[in-house]
Amino acid sequence: MTTAQIGVTGLAVMGANLARNFARNGYTVALHNRTKARTDQLVADHGSEGDFVPTETLEEFVAALERPRRVLIMVKAGDPVDAVIDEITPLLEAGDIVIDGGNSQYTDTRRREASLSELGLHFVGIGVSGGEEGALNGPSIMPGGSAESYRSLGPMLEKISAHVGDDPCCAWIGTDGAGHFVKMVHNGIEYADMQLIGEAHDLLRSVAGIEPEEQSGIFADWNTGDLASFLIEITAEVLAHRDAATGKPFIDVVVDSAGQKGTGRWTVASALDLGSPASGIAESVFARALSSQRDQREEARNVLSGPEPAGEADESFVDDVRQALYASKLVSYAQGFDIIVRGADEYGWDLNLSEIASLWRGGCIIRADLLDVIRRAYRDQRPANLLFAPEFADAIAKAAPAWRRVVAAAVQSGVPVPAFSASLAYYDALRRDRLPAALTQGLRDLFGAHTYQREDAEGTFHTMWGQDKREVRQ
Amino acid sequence: MTTAQIGVTGLAVMGANLARNFARNGYTVALHNRTKARTDQLVADHGSEGDFVPTETLEEFVAALERPRRVLIMVKAGDPVDAVIDEITPLLEAGDIVIDGGNSQYTDTRRREASLSELGLHFVGIGVSGGEEGALNGPSIMPGGSAESYRSLGPMLEKISAHVGDDPCCAWIGTDGAGHFVKMVHNGIEYADMQLIGEAHDLLRSVAGIEPEEQSGIFADWNTGDLASFLIEITAEVLAHRDAATGKPFIDVVVDSAGQKGTGRWTVASALDLGSPASGIAESVFARALSSQRDQREEARNVLSGPEPAGEADESFVDDVRQALYASKLVSYAQGFDIIVRGADEYGWDLNLSEIASLWRGGCIIRADLLDVIRRAYRDQRPANLLFAPEFADAIAKAAPAWRRVVAAAVQSGVPVPAFSASLAYYDALRRDRLPAALTQGLRDLFGAHTYQREDAEGTFHTMWGQDKREVRQ
Repeated sequence: MTTAQIGVTGLAVMGANLARNFARNGYTVALHNRTKARTDQLVADHGSEGDFVPTETLEEFVAALERPRRVLIMVKAGDPVDAVIDEITPLLEAGDIVIDGGNSQYTDTRRREASLSELGLHFVGIGVSGGEEGALNGPSIMPGGSAESYRSLGPMLEKISAHVGDDPCCAWIGTDGAGHFVKMVHNGIEYADMQLIGEAHDLLRSVAGIEPEEQSGIFADWNTGDLASFLIEITAEVLAHRDAATGKPFIDVVVDSAGQKGTGRWTVASALDLGSPASGIAESVFARALSSQRDQREEARNVLSGPEPAGEADESFVDDVRQALYASKLVSYAQGFDIIVRGADEYGWDLNLSEIASLWRGGCIIRADLLDVIRRAYRDQRPANLLFAPEFADAIAKAAPAWRRVVAAAVQSGVPVPAFSASLAYYDALRRDRLPAALTQGLRDLFGAHTYQREDAEGTFHTMWGQDKREVRQ
Repeated sequence: MTTAQIGVTGLAVMGANLARNFARNGYTVALHNRTKARTDQLVADHGSEGDFVPTETLEEFVAALERPRRVLIMVKAGDPVDAVIDEITPLLEAGDIVIDGGNSQYTDTRRREASLSELGLHFVGIGVSGGEEGALNGPSIMPGGSAESYRSLGPMLEKISAHVGDDPCCAWIGTDGAGHFVKMVHNGIEYADMQLIGEAHDLLRSVAGIEPEEQSGIFADWNTGDLASFLIEITAEVLAHRDAATGKPFIDVVVDSAGQKGTGRWTVASALDLGSPASGIAESVFARALSSQRDQREEARNVLSGPEPAGEADESFVDDVRQALYASKLVSYAQGFDIIVRGADEYGWDLNLSEIASLWRGGCIIRADLLDVIRRAYRDQRPANLLFAPEFADAIAKAAPAWRRVVAAAVQSGVPVPAFSASLAYYDALRRDRLPAALTQGLRDLFGAHTYQREDAEGTFHTMWGQDKREVRQ
């Protein structure tokens, strides 16, 4: 009875859909769930889609798998993953592959990989993006773990993944936590993408006075150019939607407090640890946090004053906003890839940035035409910062005057554009000849003897501030 | 021989200076250091300042202390603190007080407090601000731990702390990690204060063409008004300083890459965890990170283009910058106190915000006249957000037109002002009637079935996007 090529334990919607995806692609899939009813329901509803082997106990589940066994764990990230690992590892043998397909923190994945490799088991953390729909019909998949495990598992993952042309949206990312790390950054970029779209939408409405339905057409139009992407496409769809109950634009009946589940926060925390200035992504996470401070916001409306946006702007403003959105989006990607580069340095991963961009082209939430340009830029030019690739340096230079006009107009109109302006500040700071950080170092040396470097000499120096202001080499 | 009221173990400069401060204030201080030479040196150099009991072993050290023993650990934050705790706790008895005066993470302090309280010991994490100078002559002190421990230890700490009039810059903050938490936020605000000063300086120089020495006079002038503070005062001093070797302004010979030691990063990471939008503080941390990316910056100067600031501005620009700095500074404090409020909620601390502002008025790096206004605002009005206190709401409304002009001018001139603009975006977002977070929620519901709330009905809803766009109550 050892016939299944893969087993899935944890059959909530993501697990069930991945199991069906494997089965639809011709693999025999062993099924296990803590409560058997869910397993039975899956077979009852979708058994005709392929070969499933429903099992009741973990022992049966493991016995149903061909060797090396491939066990995909699809339970809630955190302690539940450890619980399943603890239960199942005694049933496995050296060479078997344990896969975690949840949104686990890469630090947990690193810990688990280290622990399971001591038992001779492969542990593979895979980032899966694309939601329920993607899981069923083709997600973007970011697998970490040993190269050896990928030789056995990779072809199956590539088969069930989304494809762009003939290219699977799946490639081996790197050892241990690399897959979950890259998935985390994907989500951070996703936060920024959505915040930037929100700011563009807000400007079109409040500064230019364009109502949601008309904006829908604008976003649909933008979706035919450089900005073409899944998120712009569905923005057009959401903006076009009218609430049936009230007849109002849908977005006007929705509470304007955005939720979050943690991956954006983790991305920013990782950026902080790695010394990567991910300011646009951070602003996007903070914008959600601020939107959720309902009590403060209600009081603030009554006590904090400012201009009201006029709701009228030149025709040209719409295209200015498009250019500002595109330039800011480039910065988000530059910041995201910088986190990846620094993570690779820190954890010793030999990451292929071109492949990462390539597998984000389909299946995942941030899929966009832009990613094909990024894929080629990293393949052909290996820029130290994405913005240094000539096509992006040119594009952003061309967009910058509009970008500056938009941020200035927002600031004067009292419309918050935290991610637009953080992205622009990043761009201007990066290209700046001298930053005021020299003053910061002077202050730190004065109050804390933190020392400084000189532009014209090697070494570390301290000025005797309280005394004769002599400079002393440390 | 059990005569010492307090013992200090770890006699590097901070430990030595605190020990001297206690002795100068009439306390008998037991001294211990891993290498005895340092203890002997301290006694040789400063033995005349008061009563010291030098000891060689931890056993002697503990034996020299009156009960309940007060042991102040002054070693590097992290593992060394745990090492000393492990070594010394077997020598102590129930009721003794172990104090960590380093820059420890509050999470570590919480862990240590829980573990020592099981042994019947008090563990007190104290935040100490003011650098070496403050440690010797009067720091700002933020003690956590049990109220009982404060009854024994507090009077001594209050005596050695800085004073503003008759008020000591020391007060019991709250249980377990509260002291180190508040000290961490102090440092986060310090990062923001310094970044904002740097942006003001940069604007004065590049947009208005004012050289450092002339700026020194401007900052000295600002130090007589609302902005009066230690950091503004020493900014004037640093800007006035000329490098002896080259004759150039000092800040022009200093490498413009700002270092950091972790507390700023921790503040932002905590803000992320607590859902507090600390965007200005985050930008300040990221500005330091970006300034340190030397290789990227060098390449960016060659490939990224933009306007050159003109170096000429109206007379009125200088005062606009002052107002922008003041408004942005208010936002940093508002963000810092919001982190504190949320930390208190999360960890069950009953914090007195007025007292926290009060003890920051002297001894510490962010000491400023403004803190007295904050102290009174929290005492008399208990605003949900610092900006809601009428005097601050008025002040920021008055400053806002200048603030907007300055950010718009910076954006148009290509001068990065990440913290000015993040602070302004925070202000505008907080007071906004509707935020584009509603669109974010719509997008999340479409691609991930994340659901949303309605403004006009209780409950959680999902729209059947892929189908007939019916709304379903969850």
